[in-house]
This record gives sequence, C-alpha cells and structure tokens, in this order.
Amino acid sequence: MFESAEVGHAVDKETFQKEEEKLRAKLLEAQRALRAQARFPVLLLISGVDGAGKSETLAQLYEWMDARYLTTLAFAAPTDEERERPYMWRYWRALPPHGRTGAFAGSWYSTPIARRIEGKISRGKLDKRLDEINRFEAMLVNEGALLLKFWLHLTREGQRRRLRQLESDPRTAWRVTKESWERTRTYDDLQRVAGHVLRLTNTAWAPWSIVDGTDDRYRHLRVGTELLLALEERLAQKHGRPHATTAPPVPRPADDRNVLSALDMDQRLPEKKYELQLAKWQGRLSELARHKRFARRSLVLAFEGMDAAGKGGSIRRLTAALDPRRFQVVPVAAPSEEERAHPYLWRFWRQLPRLGQVTIFDRSWYGRVLVERVEGLCKEEDWLRAYAEINDFENELVTAGVIVLKFWLQITEDEQLRRFKSREQVEHKRFKITSDDWRNRGKWPQYQNAAVDMIDRTSTGHAPWIVVPANDKNFARVAVARTVVKRLEKELG
Amino acid sequence: MFESAEVGHAVDKETFQKEEEKLRAKLLEAQRALRAQARFPVLLLISGVDGAGKSETLAQLYEWMDARYLTTLAFAAPTDEERERPYMWRYWRALPPHGRTGAFAGSWYSTPIARRIEGKISRGKLDKRLDEINRFEAMLVNEGALLLKFWLHLTREGQRRRLRQLESDPRTAWRVTKESWERTRTYDDLQRVAGHVLRLTNTAWAPWSIVDGTDDRYRHLRVGTELLLALEERLAQKHGRPHATTAPPVPRPADDRNVLSALDMDQRLPEKKYELQLAKWQGRLSELARHKRFARRSLVLAFEGMDAAGKGGSIRRLTAALDPRRFQVVPVAAPSEEERAHPYLWRFWRQLPRLGQVTIFDRSWYGRVLVERVEGLCKEEDWLRAYAEINDFENELVTAGVIVLKFWLQITEDEQLRRFKSREQVEHKRFKITSDDWRNRGKWPQYQNAAVDMIDRTSTGHAPWIVVPANDKNFARVAVARTVVKRLEKELG
Repeated sequence: MFESAEVGHAVDKETFQKEEEKLRAKLLEAQRALRAQARFPVLLLISGVDGAGKSETLAQLYEWMDARYLTTLAFAAPTDEERERPYMWRYWRALPPHGRTGAFAGSWYSTPIARRIEGKISRGKLDKRLDEINRFEAMLVNEGALLLKFWLHLTREGQRRRLRQLESDPRTAWRVTKESWERTRTYDDLQRVAGHVLRLTNTAWAPWSIVDGTDDRYRHLRVGTELLLALEERLAQKHGRPHATTAPPVPRPADDRNVLSALDMDQRLPEKKYELQLAKWQGRLSELARHKRFARRSLVLAFEGMDAAGKGGSIRRLTAALDPRRFQVVPVAAPSEEERAHPYLWRFWRQLPRLGQVTIFDRSWYGRVLVERVEGLCKEEDWLRAYAEINDFENELVTAGVIVLKFWLQITEDEQLRRFKSREQVEHKRFKITSDDWRNRGKWPQYQNAAVDMIDRTSTGHAPWIVVPANDKNFARVAVARTVVKRLEKELG
Repeated sequence: MFESAEVGHAVDKETFQKEEEKLRAKLLEAQRALRAQARFPVLLLISGVDGAGKSETLAQLYEWMDARYLTTLAFAAPTDEERERPYMWRYWRALPPHGRTGAFAGSWYSTPIARRIEGKISRGKLDKRLDEINRFEAMLVNEGALLLKFWLHLTREGQRRRLRQLESDPRTAWRVTKESWERTRTYDDLQRVAGHVLRLTNTAWAPWSIVDGTDDRYRHLRVGTELLLALEERLAQKHGRPHATTAPPVPRPADDRNVLSALDMDQRLPEKKYELQLAKWQGRLSELARHKRFARRSLVLAFEGMDAAGKGGSIRRLTAALDPRRFQVVPVAAPSEEERAHPYLWRFWRQLPRLGQVTIFDRSWYGRVLVERVEGLCKEEDWLRAYAEINDFENELVTAGVIVLKFWLQITEDEQLRRFKSREQVEHKRFKITSDDWRNRGKWPQYQNAAVDMIDRTSTGHAPWIVVPANDKNFARVAVARTVVKRLEKELG
C-alpha cells in the first residue's frame, strides 16, 4: 500500500520556489472563488505517522492561503460536553460551512486507529467503525463537500532520521516528545493497522492520497497541488454534484393495505379513564427521568404527523411530567442561513441532549422524506439517500446510549377537517391554521404514501416508529406517555 | 425590601381557573406575535429562596405557553469548555435569539450570591460584579431584549412550612434535598445578601419584581400576568426601543493634532534588518506560545486599519510562528442571520479561544464605531453606547486571564492609493480590491476621525491600542510581532 511513497521523492529549492509562486497565486484565486460561490465546504484530512510533517505542511498551507478562510480543526482529549454525546458529535460540530476550508489535524480516524494499536478494540469493532466512517464520508460527499484525505508516510528508518533531525534544530526540537519516540516502537503496528484502515476506507467517493513525507518541499508541493486541482475541478462544475450512492425506490404493494391504512382508527379513551391513566404514566415518567441510571443516558423523541394530528398536545402531556431544567422542545421549521450552509443533519446534531436530558423534536429530520419529498423541496436523489443517512444517524445515537423513539400520530382526513374548523373557532388556536395547512391537506395521499415509505425504511429495533391512532386525543396522549415509560423502564432495567 | 411580599397573598381555585383561561389565551397570542415580529428576545430570570416555587412556576409557564418557543436555560456546575472562558461566556452562549423566550433557572446572579454567603468573596468584589451585571443588563436592554427579573420570596417560617409540605407529597418529595434544609440555616444570610444584591441591581432598565412565593396560584398568576403585560407593551411599541444610557459625544480638539496625525509616518526598516528582526521575534513568539504558563492563559488580537493597511500581512507573520492547531484567524464581515438575531457582541463572544489558544480577529467588534458609524449602518445612539460596552467586554476578557492587544495599522492616503494600484497589477491580489474599497477611500477623514475617537475611548491599560505607522510593511510587521512578544513576556512573567 505504501510502496509508491517509498521511492524517494525530492524537490530542489529552485524548482520549489518557482512552483510555489504559481501554486500560491492559484490557491488564493481558487479560495476566493470557493468563497464567492459558497456552494460547498472543503474538508482536508492530514493524517500519517509521527514526524512525517503533518504540522509543517499545514503551516505551509497557511503561508500560501488566506488564513481567514482556512480553519484548523484539532482534536485533543474530548471535553466533557463532547464525552456526553455520540462519538461523531465533535466532528459534526466542527464541520466548516460552505465556502470555507477546514483542515482536520486529527479526525474521525485517529481514535479507532489508536485504540486498535493499543489492543483496546477488536478487529470486528474496528471494521464496524470503518463502515460507519465510509457512510459518513459518503453523506458528506453527497451533501456537496469536497473531501480530501492525505496520509503522510515515512519508512521506519525515515521516521527515526526525521525525529533526530527535528530534535537537532532548536526551532523544531519541541515537536519531538517522549511519546514520539515511544510511538516509533509501534511502527509496525501502525503500518499494519493504518494499511488495513486505508484499504477499507479508500472509497471511490473519498479516496486516500498517500504522500511520501521525507522531503519537506516535495510533500508541501504534492499536498498543495492536489488540493488545488481538486478545488479547480469542483469549482468548474457549476451544476451537479458527485453522488456516492443512491438508494433504489421501493416498489409499493398493489393493494392499499399498509401500516397506516391497517390501523384501527376507532380506538377511544373516555375522559375519566384518560385522566386516571395519564396521571399514572406521568407520575411514572417523572420518576424515571430522575432515576439515577437515567443520569448516564439521554432521551430523544421525534414527533411527526399530519397538521392538527395532536403533536403539540401529546408533547405537552410529557413535558408536564418533566423538570423544566431537563428538557428542551425543538420546533423544526425552515433551516437558518447557518444551517443551510452545513449538511442536512447538522442542525439536528447540534440539538442533541447532554446526559440526563430530554430533547423532544416537534417535527424532525424526517422532514426531508416527508414535506421536502412531497413538495419537491429537494431532489429525488437527496431524499432517497436520506433514509440510509437517517438510519446511520439514529444508530450513532443509540450506540452512544441515547434512547430514541419516534411517533407518527395518525388521523383521518375527516378528523383533520373537523379540527381545522374547530381551531378557527377558538381565539388562541386560530393562529395555528395557515394557508400551508390547507395546501398540505390537498396532498393527503402523497403525504400518507411518504409516511408509509418512511416507516418501512426507518423503523428499526433500536429506534422504532410508534404509529398511534390519534383521532381520539385522549387515546393518543396516553399511548404516547405509556410507550415512553415502557421504553424507559426497559432501558433503565 | 421584601415586606410587600409578606402580607399574605392567596388566590382561590375558582378565581385561578377563570383568570388562567384568559391569561393562557393572551400569552399564546403574545408569544405568536413575538415570533412573527422577531424583533427582540424575552429573558425571564426566575430566582429566589429554596422552596419558593421557582420550578413549579416555570412548569406552569410551560403549561400555558408554546413550549417550542420557550427555552429553559439551566446552569449547573460549569463544563470544562465554560471554565476555560470568561465568567459571562456561558450566559452569552445561552442568550435566546429574537422572537424566543429564554427562562433562566439560575443566572448571572446565582454564583455571586452563593459565593458571598459562603464568605468566598468580599463585599467589594461582590459590588464590582453587580456593577458589571448592571452594565451587562443595560446592554441587553439597549440591544432590544425584554428582560424580566423575578425574585420569589418566602418568610423563614414560610420556607420551613413549604419544604415540609413538599416532602409530605410523594410527587414533590424529591425536590427537597438535604441541601434544601441546610440552606434554611442560612436564611438570614441569604436575605441579607439578596437584599443587598436586589437593591444594587434594581435599575430603571431592569427592575426586580419581588413575588410572595407562599401561594402557588397567586405566584403563578402574578408571574404570568407581569410577563404578559410587559410583552404586550413591548409588542405594541412598533418603533423605537427603550434606552438605558447614552454616552455623550466627545468634543473634539480644535487643532488637527491627534494620535494618528502625530505619528512619524516615515519610519522604515531595510530588508536585511527586517529579516533578522522578524526571525528573532517569530522565534520568541513560537517559544512563548508553548510556554507552560500560556497553557493557563489565552490571547486575543484585534487588527483594524484602513483598507490595504497590511492587516493580513502582519497577521500572517504572526501565524507563521504559531502551531496551526493553536490559533484561529477570524475574518469579520457582515453578520449572519443567526448573529443578527443576538446582541451585537454575541458573535465575538462565540469565537473566544479556550486556554492555550490564540484568536486573531481581522477586523473586529470595533466595526460598530468605525464602518457602521461612518456608513450610517447603525443609529448614533447605538455606536455611542458601543464604546462602554466594548470596554466592558474587554474587561471581562482580561479579568478571566485573556491577554488582549489591539492594533491600528496607520497608512497615509497616498500610500493606500499606491497599494490599490499595485494590487491591481498582481493577479492573485486583484480580488482584494473591490468597489467598497474605493468608496471607503472617499471618506478618509471620517474614518480617521472615527479611529481617533475609538482609540481615545477604548485604549485601556489592560487592553491597549497599539498604533503602528504602516507605510513601510517591514516596519509594521516587526512592530506588531515585537509588541505581541513583549506583552506575552510581561504577562507570563
């Protein structure tokens, strides 16, 4: 794998100076165009063995480029805010917006590689993580990111020579620590693990570039030139973006039986029973949210359903049982400017709860496969790939100990009409009815169809969809509260 | 101070239900209008003695209002990311955007009050903090925030009765902890300190409302009604905002001697000397940034100056000496949508470095008193009050151990013209010249005037302005690097 990086590349000073001048002018120009277009971000991963010149080449890029639009994203030990969220949270959080370049000094590869060398994770676990990384990178690329991954290589003897050379110069001696020398002892392990990691993550959409780190000038020019060419190519593609994968559309069954049409919509709960049962589940929920085991977990709830399905009312029956310091209700509407400059799921990642906290999404990341699909707000290829991306996202949450539940509140067309009319009668509910609501109502079958596809493709054992017949508000509210309680009881043992 | 909250208020159930219905409808309507106007945020501080019903009243507000646009901002022990920034960072970070309501359960008052009761800070220190709080709240109000501060009061006997009552009900018993009872022993201390704090922070622009906490129904209605009235009043004021303070304009001296015109603009540094000196200061800077004492500090640099004054070049000479993982260059241009929905300084607070890090602002928070003033992008009253707000901001930084330096790079009109023309010759610099630059050039005297005012009013011992004659780039770059080094040497001892 690393052979072609061991053939002994070198660039003389004169060539370097000549090349550097041209490269610098073009890099600045490309960076300016990147900023002007503001259509995509650039993600630069600079990884490799100790002493192979990662910091030096990054510093060289700062010399060549406009530092105002280049950001180094360094990751040391996770902060406590990071430790309380899924593994990928700190990387999502750091993603540069459209028009900017983020240089990752340390990345989502660092921890898996280090832990595998230390023997802390099995080969199987490593491969599972690499699979997740591949899908994460596919998502980034599909979202438009220009992702470049460099691995700076040194031979075993090259590494020792390089460290001695750095040590001998007072300006660079500080870069060589006791740990650097210790890590030379695991050179073979690193080569073996890195070789494996690079092979498995050398995908068509995000290939690795292996660079000989021995000669400073060669390395700088090689990284700078590759960056420039990739940037120029992407900038020239005014339309269209590369697409890593596209999920095929599902063939729908011929009859009209589906998970929604099969529901018994006549289920009701009389007022007296409702009050008793609601009080019971609320009491239990209140206890569970204060359970000492919940302090090491967190809860994410997503509510979807047609307009007036009773999402707000169901949510309010849950929050009434929770400490206001422990929950957050997140309304999901059109994304902000900052959110639009990041991958689709970014705005949901940024709302993830810390340990011991509850986040309730009133509408959610499923907007992409519901309203955006039906109203044509995104391309077919985008909502098609969203199913897999959403499954990956929820999988990350569950792996990190987040308890995830998703509710679809189902009502009939007649019931919706009745509620729209009744809302128009009540002063403080009138504002809830907008022209959008009447318009969406006109697309009832398309929305139902999209909901069925969504449930079919994203209801998983660890993050299930709970379809609730909601023509009777009492019945729906109790069903929601009971489901949350039962799940918490199971999870908290 | 608390007498009127001890006269024994109570509301019977029937009255409560009648009032509640009206209040709820109106609160929802006001909240909807708040969101539709999206002109200002609502900040609700709910403080008071233990057992006075803070959480209960907050929970009641959640029952009445739309939870999607109400956010509880709770502050337990600071996270490590918070501990590495100035005291107020966590509160800035939590500020709700325009159109939303943030309920502070715990606020900037909590720590000073608790530490004073524990005897950890002196009366003088407390008063200094209160003074800072008053200015912070004035800033919020001037930025348009509707700020409501509630103090829920109980008599000593009332507190004990209340805790016993909570304990006797299994649904609320968990709210009473050992700490709650321990704090009853310091009832007198709390009354004394809180009385003092409330008196000193009971300002015209952010007065306290003291509420008898004994009776749940009375307390809920009182807080809800005050919130409603204040909201309705602000929503009705379509134009204009309340203004806490307005600094008077400075009379300018009659002659044209000022800190800029008095500069010796002929200072130069020949190439050879420049290279030697630059290398010397860069080497020293590199060492200091790795100094073990710097790991407990951080550095904020702000660069201002006319277009083409050489800000970027000076910054690049500094970053060349720094580890790319340790610095960030922040370009300051027009604020984003999210930034515009927060107080002016919010976008600078969110960029503050962690310990051991350097943040370099290429243009800065001084935009308000430079470009925004000269181009009329904000009202006179807004840029006038900005001087004091900026001084407060920098004071917060310095108090937290941040080292702050501000550079004004001064060039002459002729030199600027020469640089504009020369930039147009060099391909990779051509993009640097825009029509804005030519327009700004037409307002040279106004900009110089604004710069002189700025330096006069915001150059402080702890966050000084360094005015650098920058007609000669070599001279300016070395002066900047030397100044940073000298300051770091002094600060790190």
